[in-house]
Amino acid sequence: MLTGAIEAGGTKFVCGVGDATGSRETARIDTRDVAGTLDAVVDFFRAAQERHGAVAGFGIGSFGPLQLDPAAPDFGRITTTPKPGWAGADIPARLRAAFAVPVAIDTDVNAAALAEAATGAGRGARSLAYVTIGTGVGVGLAIDGRTVRGLGHPEAGHLLVRRHPGHGDFDGICPYHGDCLEGLASGPAIIAAWGGSLATLPADHPAWDVLADYIGQLCASLILTVAPTHIVLGGGVMQQARLLEGARVRTADRLAGYCAEWQGDVFDRRITAPGCIEPPGLVGAYMLARAAVAAG
Amino acid sequence: MLTGAIEAGGTKFVCGVGDATGSRETARIDTRDVAGTLDAVVDFFRAAQERHGAVAGFGIGSFGPLQLDPAAPDFGRITTTPKPGWAGADIPARLRAAFAVPVAIDTDVNAAALAEAATGAGRGARSLAYVTIGTGVGVGLAIDGRTVRGLGHPEAGHLLVRRHPGHGDFDGICPYHGDCLEGLASGPAIIAAWGGSLATLPADHPAWDVLADYIGQLCASLILTVAPTHIVLGGGVMQQARLLEGARVRTADRLAGYCAEWQGDVFDRRITAPGCIEPPGLVGAYMLARAAVAAG
Repeated sequence: MLTGAIEAGGTKFVCGVGDATGSRETARIDTRDVAGTLDAVVDFFRAAQERHGAVAGFGIGSFGPLQLDPAAPDFGRITTTPKPGWAGADIPARLRAAFAVPVAIDTDVNAAALAEAATGAGRGARSLAYVTIGTGVGVGLAIDGRTVRGLGHPEAGHLLVRRHPGHGDFDGICPYHGDCLEGLASGPAIIAAWGGSLATLPADHPAWDVLADYIGQLCASLILTVAPTHIVLGGGVMQQARLLEGARVRTADRLAGYCAEWQGDVFDRRITAPGCIEPPGLVGAYMLARAAVAAG
Repeated sequence: MLTGAIEAGGTKFVCGVGDATGSRETARIDTRDVAGTLDAVVDFFRAAQERHGAVAGFGIGSFGPLQLDPAAPDFGRITTTPKPGWAGADIPARLRAAFAVPVAIDTDVNAAALAEAATGAGRGARSLAYVTIGTGVGVGLAIDGRTVRGLGHPEAGHLLVRRHPGHGDFDGICPYHGDCLEGLASGPAIIAAWGGSLATLPADHPAWDVLADYIGQLCASLILTVAPTHIVLGGGVMQQARLLEGARVRTADRLAGYCAEWQGDVFDRRITAPGCIEPPGLVGAYMLARAAVAAG
């Protein structure tokens, strides 16, 4: 079954047409105003269907926050994003209007969690937390093959971590919370605190320990709250490989031996980099699309 | 269908025989050594079945930590409890040996979450977090009628909260983490810090604000991590009614308007006291029993 997938981000939309084995074709569309972006998305899918055949449905893994309550009048829309012009944007409606097929939407990180649990680093995972640390900090959750949504959706990037003394009196940059996790540990927060990205800072710079501790606190909080069988750490900041090892050590430090199942090399096996061949948000969007088609 | 239910705690086991409408008979058995306690439990159920008829299965909501991975050799056992003699205790095995019917086990708080979502304060809830603040701090999660388990089970009582300045330099009493939530906000922690339970402290004592803030941090963390549609706050410490109102206010303070769905009176409607007529852990244990019987 051929479906369409969109990983909708604040800087780019990655679109793909493919099946359960992967994409046949993908395209990157820079995010601009809503109408212009979605016109380009629709144009891509029109053209791609001429080359590959009709798609049976669409899945979208989107930046948010999103309204994911099917009973809400604004179901499927982006809600309170600070991104200019995008509050209230209805990506599913534009696709339904253009193609008259089922369309499903979830957060980009929930879609990524679904994908990593099915075919990525946590293949066969009962429950998986997908963390992205980049422009922002996002967390998605998939349990038993379904993403977690309730009154709102996971937003654990805004958890209040305990401040690391190495961060001095840095105020944090989250417009809502100041020094929540995203306000302290996102890519822009690193630059604001230390004047450069992690990649540009020397190996003995305190930023490395500070970041590892914050990510370790996040992982420990996720383990204590939802007991995932796997945690996958992705995003631009996590491309610094030594940060992954530091985060594992700090997660264990924070748990302090309390969780019987989280001991020894479990941290190495259960807290990993992403494993999907394609971007996990895109892979998850294909999964959402297939589920939407199956549900009619 | 008649089933047996056990709410297994560190100080007492509450046992009941009943059906979906509630208990026909309950008994309280003081927790002593494993063999003595479980003998008394079995004796109760033997006698109760003579009065009410045979039960089709048992459900147990237990203190923990528990091994809940069906693939583990110690599935169903208590694992690393500091309670003397109880590490490794296998409550389900004792019941199966005595009665040869299906037996299910989950944490007491997961069972309570299941019950509160089905028939309690969150009746019809899509997802519910049940918090108990008493001798310890425990959190259970039920999503779409199923409890959350993965590698381990929820243990969010040990989350690291940001310390309230009103707590001074109190070290906290958690043997693993010192000043985690349980180490700061459990009943024994309150007594250790201030020399008396909350009920004995004057209305203008700083403890009230400190506690409300910690519980607010917990609720905010739960909302940000799993987006529950309802949070139910139970346990001995929460019997101080003004603490509930304080916790709601502090939850909203900590979220700082970030979550679009959590605004205004939503906190009053979605963060509540328990609503089950019987103890929610017991009600949940009946639900676990019925599910075990249905599953064979």
